[in-house]
Amino acid sequence: MYAPPIQRLITELGKLPGIGARTAQRLAFHILRASAEDAVSLADSIREVKERIGLCEVCFNLADAPRCRICEDTRRDASLICVVEEAGDVIPVERTHEFRGRYHVLGGALSPIDGVDPDDLKIAELYRRVTDPAQPVAEVVLATNPTTTGEATALHIADALRSRAPEVVVTRLASGLPVGGDLEYADEVTLGKAFAGRRRL
Amino acid sequence: MYAPPIQRLITELGKLPGIGARTAQRLAFHILRASAEDAVSLADSIREVKERIGLCEVCFNLADAPRCRICEDTRRDASLICVVEEAGDVIPVERTHEFRGRYHVLGGALSPIDGVDPDDLKIAELYRRVTDPAQPVAEVVLATNPTTTGEATALHIADALRSRAPEVVVTRLASGLPVGGDLEYADEVTLGKAFAGRRRL
Repeated sequence: MYAPPIQRLITELGKLPGIGARTAQRLAFHILRASAEDAVSLADSIREVKERIGLCEVCFNLADAPRCRICEDTRRDASLICVVEEAGDVIPVERTHEFRGRYHVLGGALSPIDGVDPDDLKIAELYRRVTDPAQPVAEVVLATNPTTTGEATALHIADALRSRAPEVVVTRLASGLPVGGDLEYADEVTLGKAFAGRRRL
Repeated sequence: MYAPPIQRLITELGKLPGIGARTAQRLAFHILRASAEDAVSLADSIREVKERIGLCEVCFNLADAPRCRICEDTRRDASLICVVEEAGDVIPVERTHEFRGRYHVLGGALSPIDGVDPDDLKIAELYRRVTDPAQPVAEVVLATNPTTTGEATALHIADALRSRAPEVVVTRLASGLPVGGDLEYADEVTLGKAFAGRRRL
């Protein structure tokens, strides 16, 4: 029904996550209506990001150089490592301004059902960083997601670090009620965690 | 916070309609994770659509040739013209299989508030088609959106056609379309009924 270039664009847009057939059509027609410069700018930014962005050789965060900006920043505390599942998780942690250390991006979470083993993640690389005598590490904050797979990954790494680097403090982000949330709408598991982790005021 | 190429991609994606900052980030990270071929394929399809798609010289529908497929299709009734606001409105009408004529894409709707006058739309071109002795027109179906601007556009064109081409039957899609809605999002059955019940203006 569409001319082939339009159908192709709709198909390509429909491959993006959360973009259904209708939205893909709407976006395609927007691009058709947009100025040629805007469209070329979008196309170029997609190509550019794939050409210029790779993984940091130290922490596997996204980087436009061999090392990412955070690993290159000498003001960041290199003895503190925050372990996250995906590169996208670095940004929300940065936004808190609570963490001034470095990161380690695993590239996912352990999930035997999906065939994700420790070898599929940057876990061996984490152990190598933590036990590197040239750069002592004081604390590893496990900031994997509070999901089944994220918890399993955190426990797996915590166990391994206990034997490999017993002097390193291993911590996990607190689970509890989201700020601004309502007790009435909290699920049992979250509320249970909030109770278990209650602090004296 | 992001490397410049990532920030640029997020900015470009955020210019798309209905794509907020969070969604733009999510899409950008998806593209970063995707294979290079998939990303290049998306980028190329955007460029290609702008390079290869133009407006049909007869009806101003999108076309990858001087004339669109519908205007080139001799089996379509050239004496029947369906007037729509945007090229995206042709597809939902086609899906109803109720209409076997040709189209005329205005490129918008009259809106004095937004400074859209008859000269900004392909209205003069419509009058020229309707009064062209080489190709007599029997009926013009006004399928502009059932909104204030769409109705105003339909009335404006109906008035003008009454004096310019009094022999031509001018019809309007039946109400049955939800008022305030958009043709692009109408389901086939509703739109089909609206076609079947079109009334003379």
